Amino acid sequence: MSKVDLNCDLGESFGLYKIGRDEEILDFVTSANIACGFHAGDPSTIQQTVSLALRKNVAIGAHPGLPDRVGFGRRNMDITAREAFDMVVYQIGAVQAFAHAEGGRLQHVKPHGALYNMAAGNKELAEAIAEAIYKVNPELILLGLSGSELVLAGNKLGLRTANEVFADRTYQLDGSLTPRRQEHALIKDEAQAINQVVKMVKEGKVDSVQGQPISIQADSICIHGDSEHALVFAEKIRNALTQEMISVTPLANL
Amino acid sequence: MSKVDLNCDLGESFGLYKIGRDEEILDFVTSANIACGFHAGDPSTIQQTVSLALRKNVAIGAHPGLPDRVGFGRRNMDITAREAFDMVVYQIGAVQAFAHAEGGRLQHVKPHGALYNMAAGNKELAEAIAEAIYKVNPELILLGLSGSELVLAGNKLGLRTANEVFADRTYQLDGSLTPRRQEHALIKDEAQAINQVVKMVKEGKVDSVQGQPISIQADSICIHGDSEHALVFAEKIRNALTQEMISVTPLANL
Amino acid sequence: MSKVDLNCDLGESFGLYKIGRDEEILDFVTSANIACGFHAGDPSTIQQTVSLALRKNVAIGAHPGLPDRVGFGRRNMDITAREAFDMVVYQIGAVQAFAHAEGGRLQHVKPHGALYNMAAGNKELAEAIAEAIYKVNPELILLGLSGSELVLAGNKLGLRTANEVFADRTYQLDGSLTPRRQEHALIKDEAQAINQVVKMVKEGKVDSVQGQPISIQADSICIHGDSEHALVFAEKIRNALTQEMISVTPLANL
Amino acid sequence: MSKVDLNCDLGESFGLYKIGRDEEILDFVTSANIACGFHAGDPSTIQQTVSLALRKNVAIGAHPGLPDRVGFGRRNMDITAREAFDMVVYQIGAVQAFAHAEGGRLQHVKPHGALYNMAAGNKELAEAIAEAIYKVNPELILLGLSGSELVLAGNKLGLRTANEVFADRTYQLDGSLTPRRQEHALIKDEAQAINQVVKMVKEGKVDSVQGQPISIQADSICIHGDSEHALVFAEKIRNALTQEMISVTPLANL
Repeated sequence: MSKVDLNCDLGESFGLYKIGRDEEILDFVTSANIACGFHAGDPSTIQQTVSLALRKNVAIGAHPGLPDRVGFGRRNMDITAREAFDMVVYQIGAVQAFAHAEGGRLQHVKPHGALYNMAAGNKELAEAIAEAIYKVNPELILLGLSGSELVLAGNKLGLRTANEVFADRTYQLDGSLTPRRQEHALIKDEAQAINQVVKMVKEGKVDSVQGQPISIQADSICIHGDSEHALVFAEKIRNALTQEMISVTPLANL
Repeated sequence: MSKVDLNCDLGESFGLYKIGRDEEILDFVTSANIACGFHAGDPSTIQQTVSLALRKNVAIGAHPGLPDRVGFGRRNMDITAREAFDMVVYQIGAVQAFAHAEGGRLQHVKPHGALYNMAAGNKELAEAIAEAIYKVNPELILLGLSGSELVLAGNKLGLRTANEVFADRTYQLDGSLTPRRQEHALIKDEAQAINQVVKMVKEGKVDSVQGQPISIQADSICIHGDSEHALVFAEKIRNALTQEMISVTPLANL
Repeated sequence: MSKVDLNCDLGESFGLYKIGRDEEILDFVTSANIACGFHAGDPSTIQQTVSLALRKNVAIGAHPGLPDRVGFGRRNMDITAREAFDMVVYQIGAVQAFAHAEGGRLQHVKPHGALYNMAAGNKELAEAIAEAIYKVNPELILLGLSGSELVLAGNKLGLRTANEVFADRTYQLDGSLTPRRQEHALIKDEAQAINQVVKMVKEGKVDSVQGQPISIQADSICIHGDSEHALVFAEKIRNALTQEMISVTPLANL
Repeated sequence: MSKVDLNCDLGESFGLYKIGRDEEILDFVTSANIACGFHAGDPSTIQQTVSLALRKNVAIGAHPGLPDRVGFGRRNMDITAREAFDMVVYQIGAVQAFAHAEGGRLQHVKPHGALYNMAAGNKELAEAIAEAIYKVNPELILLGLSGSELVLAGNKLGLRTANEVFADRTYQLDGSLTPRRQEHALIKDEAQAINQVVKMVKEGKVDSVQGQPISIQADSICIHGDSEHALVFAEKIRNALTQEMISVTPLANL
């Protein structure tokens, strides 16, 4: 039977500022990527999010980002591999401590935003991030863009890795995501998005925008949880996967 | 044979800004309190400091502070006990991750500056901090002002605790430190400072500014490492302790 | 004819985080207190808020706060008078630059949250803040709690000052606000809140919680703009004032 | 008679962290670029630096940088032109307020570090920064890399501009600085550095690393003030200029 994980970015609130429908989306996902206080989140938000995820039996991950709160970690920064290593160790440690304090454990690490994107294509950065994860705890699973340098770096080190795919994004012939600024980057038709996901999980294939199908490894699907619409779509995806006899389960069970 | 730990605040640099003579003072102390990135420090500074301490066989501690970098964590803030808990969990986790990444382990936690001072007298805050330490890792040692609410809170929870004393500060009849703004708060005569320390460790007593001796528990002596003079004095204290047949050893060995 | 200003805290969003119904509340108020980037706000939010206020003919004020973003500037901090002076000069300058860049001018300064509250009762802090305003631009109006040390400090320096009152808070016999944690601190009945405001503006009196009326100077009423309910209430207050033949006009016209 | 300005980056301390020999270097330079609290500096540091510069008759400039304190504003960030505009308006306003509070005025603006470098070659960013300066105060002088997009953007808007040159850096045939990572990027021989400066000011020429002389406009020379050696070299340059009958004077007098 096919298996897949559903992951969502959570704990992105900050102080008085609230973002995301964390409590509701936790009913549909199996892994939570929790912001670590650099691009989003703060100690109290992490505590509450970890506690909520544990209560809902959702596996906990650290979601480290660039030190750019005003830009939400979405602006590329010219950091060195050494700096990437250090900021990832720091952020994993912070979230892991809350997991332990709440009686749980950390399952995985998924870099956020610009750090995720830069590491997808930059081998040196990818290796520094993979090494940071490995050195903090070699049992952690590295979740990165399917087929990216980040996943390759994790594999090379002997880390467990997981390949992330997207329901609402299209793919290029080389397996990369179509950049958002290009036409046809987003899949707006829900049925099409769900079909893409089911095919990726069951067949390991996706139709590229160029028309030809390509191979893709789909271990985890990225789910959004920031609006009413996102919640409804999350439920639809989850139901469709179940109907297709695909088991939805945390990364650690794959 | 009497034993005592010598501790020093380290890793207080930040980015390009350098503070402290970390490499040199590590030759004299047995426990390092490493700033965690809130009042001072940053991921790369923590990494370097942890690595340096391990190389010099100095035990590693987290030194969590208030989120007030411009005030170096020295300005009291009206935080709740819940906020104190959360910010301490976070900061311990961050430093602990570097200790693990470097192949070491975390020995202790000592709050910094205003957080240390507020927790010395505020029972609710003290209990929140002790609980944070306990929940992250019950093997950690809590280092606080000798006889303070913080140490009491740790004892109550079943944490190992250590009482910190000062060579260069005078004590009141009730065991508290003479506030810095009062006369005779500081001991400027080195011989007198060293005598005070030796007496505290060997006899468990200190002469209060009011003249009468009081009981005091001295598990660890706070050493400064921010100037040439501080380094020279650290060496003198260490030598005096050795001559007095007092073993200088990390908290974990007390 | 009686006159009064309606003021609201605005520009409290931060990066991706949105807070407040700024565009809508600007239809009801006459003065906008714009967060300056310390407790809330960021350069782009200030720019947009200043631009919006100018377009809606609402007078612009700086709303400086403590450097405590995670606590939204609501936690008291032990800052010195010198530090208060410096942080207020800085924040006024930042907002004033946007006012000039957009072709407008700065009308007033109202400290935020804990800075406002601390300055209401602390003469030294109040004088430092008043001096900061005066030195940046002696034409600015200082808006503070009615009858507070802050308003007194402004008057003493020769600044124009304005006394702020609250529709939804009760007053003590000594003119201070009933602390929020006490019973009867809040007025939940809208008619009662509106009556209190009208009486303060027209008669310069308010009924204390102890029953006796006391004198109060009401130059500006604090309006909230953070929810649908707040918007409806703002409109009601504005309409009630108009019906009572009270002119609603910016501070500069009082 | 030839004229030139000597400028130095100042006010880069932060809280307890001290950097730079501000008081001493102010004896040699004619324009001070004061950090604005984003990459370095804080309100109290700005206040002290502005006050010191005024006392020593050195003209005051704002030195806005990227919001990256841990990286000292030296790491490129993918900011939009709109974000650059907003962060420059904000930072100019902050420093300008201190200049006014201390009875002085702001002379110029020079972007810092990565913002300076990115704006030197990126027309869109350059125009946003020039517009920010112009809109806050069209009397301000824009100081940028000689011949850069930044200076061109200022000229286009009708701002007064000043071209900055370096004593200790070599130039390429196209007028750009030799990147630091390349050989021969730095001039370590003091006599050679001074000769380069004198030639640039008197003849408007510099020898490129390729050998051929190129034209260069030299309105202001960048001076370092972070070490004993830098101070000595600053004095040498100043003396050499005087001996060559070059008047050393603030930008506003050029």
